[in-house]
Amino acid sequence: MSPEEFRNQGKQMIDWIADYYENIEQYPVLSQVKPGEIKNQLPDSAPLESESMTQIMEDVNSIIMPGITHWQSPNFYAFFPSNSSGPSILGDLLSSGLGVQGMIWATSPACTELETRVLDWLSEMLQLPEKFKSSSDGGAVIQDTASSAALSAILAAREKKTNYETNDSGSLGNLVAYVSMHTHSSVEKAIKIAGIGKNNLRLIGVDENLAMRPDLLETAIKNDLQNGLIPFFVCATVGTTSTNAMDPLPEIGQICQQYELWMHIDAAMSGTAAICPEYRYLLNGVEYADSFSFNPHKWMFTNFDCNCFFVADRSVLIKTLSILPEYLKNQATESGAVFDYRDWHIQLGRRFRSLKLWFVIRHYGVNGLRYHIRQHINLAQQFAEWVRSSDEFDLVTPAPLNLVCFAHKSGNDFNRKLLETINNKGKMYFTHTVINNQYVLRMCIGQTNTKEEHVDLAWKIIQETAKELSYQKL
Amino acid sequence: MSPEEFRNQGKQMIDWIADYYENIEQYPVLSQVKPGEIKNQLPDSAPLESESMTQIMEDVNSIIMPGITHWQSPNFYAFFPSNSSGPSILGDLLSSGLGVQGMIWATSPACTELETRVLDWLSEMLQLPEKFKSSSDGGAVIQDTASSAALSAILAAREKKTNYETNDSGSLGNLVAYVSMHTHSSVEKAIKIAGIGKNNLRLIGVDENLAMRPDLLETAIKNDLQNGLIPFFVCATVGTTSTNAMDPLPEIGQICQQYELWMHIDAAMSGTAAICPEYRYLLNGVEYADSFSFNPHKWMFTNFDCNCFFVADRSVLIKTLSILPEYLKNQATESGAVFDYRDWHIQLGRRFRSLKLWFVIRHYGVNGLRYHIRQHINLAQQFAEWVRSSDEFDLVTPAPLNLVCFAHKSGNDFNRKLLETINNKGKMYFTHTVINNQYVLRMCIGQTNTKEEHVDLAWKIIQETAKELSYQKL
Repeated sequence: MSPEEFRNQGKQMIDWIADYYENIEQYPVLSQVKPGEIKNQLPDSAPLESESMTQIMEDVNSIIMPGITHWQSPNFYAFFPSNSSGPSILGDLLSSGLGVQGMIWATSPACTELETRVLDWLSEMLQLPEKFKSSSDGGAVIQDTASSAALSAILAAREKKTNYETNDSGSLGNLVAYVSMHTHSSVEKAIKIAGIGKNNLRLIGVDENLAMRPDLLETAIKNDLQNGLIPFFVCATVGTTSTNAMDPLPEIGQICQQYELWMHIDAAMSGTAAICPEYRYLLNGVEYADSFSFNPHKWMFTNFDCNCFFVADRSVLIKTLSILPEYLKNQATESGAVFDYRDWHIQLGRRFRSLKLWFVIRHYGVNGLRYHIRQHINLAQQFAEWVRSSDEFDLVTPAPLNLVCFAHKSGNDFNRKLLETINNKGKMYFTHTVINNQYVLRMCIGQTNTKEEHVDLAWKIIQETAKELSYQKL
Repeated sequence: MSPEEFRNQGKQMIDWIADYYENIEQYPVLSQVKPGEIKNQLPDSAPLESESMTQIMEDVNSIIMPGITHWQSPNFYAFFPSNSSGPSILGDLLSSGLGVQGMIWATSPACTELETRVLDWLSEMLQLPEKFKSSSDGGAVIQDTASSAALSAILAAREKKTNYETNDSGSLGNLVAYVSMHTHSSVEKAIKIAGIGKNNLRLIGVDENLAMRPDLLETAIKNDLQNGLIPFFVCATVGTTSTNAMDPLPEIGQICQQYELWMHIDAAMSGTAAICPEYRYLLNGVEYADSFSFNPHKWMFTNFDCNCFFVADRSVLIKTLSILPEYLKNQATESGAVFDYRDWHIQLGRRFRSLKLWFVIRHYGVNGLRYHIRQHINLAQQFAEWVRSSDEFDLVTPAPLNLVCFAHKSGNDFNRKLLETINNKGKMYFTHTVINNQYVLRMCIGQTNTKEEHVDLAWKIIQETAKELSYQKL
């Protein structure tokens, strides 16, 4: 494709995307297709000869679009947000256009150095301790997801605890890690990947707010020590996926310090709130952490994938994941003059992801980001208030930020039916969780374009549908 | 950013990228900046207030661009290609615009089903055995990189061999894996991540063409068995990174079959050549493989990241990486009605990457892709012929495809100086390897826009610079 044709086709694609955002509310939020429906419309074999962009875009419109669940719709309240924005899409487009492979500093110095600088900005925006800055012994790197960040933390913790012996001789099945019963399942996956074994992952009990109980954590650690096992890692969560529960970081941190465990903090969605001074308290205790991660691709207007992973002692991470003999690389790396980011995560290759993050932060400004985060939280708090004042619905857990967990008083079957009925209507999409055998509805408010009118409408739909279903039941 | 502003800014960005490709040869291919030079031009703190796209793009031009090594330049011959194309950039742009998170089928059915279909197309284009097709017991998934694909293969092999016991109880340091001395270092990294330990990775010796020697592989396996260890995994390479050596797949495959080892094939760059019938022989023996991967983001005009990972028995992979209890998910997944791709790789979240691959295959058509691959190979073969006929240079290894390894007759120091001098001139960029203590120059020809005139120029620059350096030496 010549630059001229790219110019022409590219502008049409930009128009297509702008049109999409203008009309996004006209699509059913949750795709209504059945398994196989999309695949069966696509030819069995690749075309031998070239096809035009017009043909391709016709198929996008007729075949692909019905199979899209519209994550960017302002009426999307499911799972967690994965919000995006114009500047992010443009930063990502620039990254694709440059086509840079930033595996080491030398393969494009700007790719490494912009990333380092922007992550230091974020460190300051979140008021993280100095140790996480690149100018100290720590630093940060963009990873794809919080899952990969957790895996990297587990590996660094494993190597630090075994004095890098596991990298040489393999795991021995005697290391033990700790999470709460509500920690995201990606940690269990990472524990299996790292050769620790899920039988060596303790699921610590939670308090009435579904936050990890430090007393039970300490009991479990003591018990494992008595049995000759080696506790090495704790993951504390700021805002669990299920209910946005907040593990008590200072208490967990003190235990990690006392027993010499690596403390990782997963603040995937909720970490973003801490850029607002009034929500920074959520990160109190982060000073104990060895690593910390959050996802601008969830709630900071940066399109997937973009996880920011901060580490207090980069030398441990690098020594764990570097594949070059130390004598070749470490002097430059440890001096801080040059980071080779391929030694900071699982993959070797990497794209220029800091561009989109840089575009987003500059386009919004820190105050602009704070404004939108506060709007989302205010909308969620308003929704929680409606639930509290309602005769038909109960608030099931505290709603500290932008996630509201609630249920109709008519029981699990009713709530299941209510969710299904509403999602099939296509006007909004939300999901559920299960807490102590109770089927609970989740409204997570964080899409870029969600405004008061959308949340008003959602509450109206929920109430009306509940009334209809109650009536049918009578 | 409103849709209208996005429309306006987006078109300017498209123009910027089109201009970039029109003028790309005017930049020095290898960035000439010093460590810290980019970072020090960027402010210490994020801006509090919004900045305009004009300001941001001014900084892209003045600060970022000098720190770019131009991977998309037709004069880029370093490492391996990471080629891109107009349709790929547009497919990726559409993916960013839709902002879909395809972790499971239900979160956007089109994201899963297009991927399955396009990977089946590729399976056919590469004439892979039926077992790798989604309609059989196997299937394929897009991963970010060949490193992650190798890690996934190692994990599946580990679990299959231990009857899923390692996932439960952790590794035991008695599993052994095999690669050649020239296998990519990502496999060593994956072996460490998986808790196998690098002492349990055997580096098998190579023949005169730097391909793995099956007799030494079998000896090593027998030796480990005698010592009570458990051989479980072999990675064979189609086109090593260093010299494009081709491991003998049928012989290695037979040994894997006999001793019940998982056979993974890494064809990261060179796999693409097999879409041309005359190069399909490179994959002879793939019928023995349990898994196979190659990177359209290297040599198939699809921008990073896009690795295609094929597996012969998807149930092993899914059972290894699934984090949901089996009774919840496996009936739908194993029936083939629904794939939840988050259970096919390390990460949970995933973007809509099949769009760019679909755009590329349809824009070029299979014949178009073949045409460009053949052009690259012809150019490299022409270059190899020039080296062979030269009095000053030697061809160091066979050049089966698009990589030529050669050296000036004047020894290591001279070649090192030659490479450095040429790369600093900025007209082209190539890199080196070391083979049996010999410093060897590498010309890897695979950039989308590399034509005869560029390779002519490269050979001219190399010859002239060598003459200048020889003259200075006298």
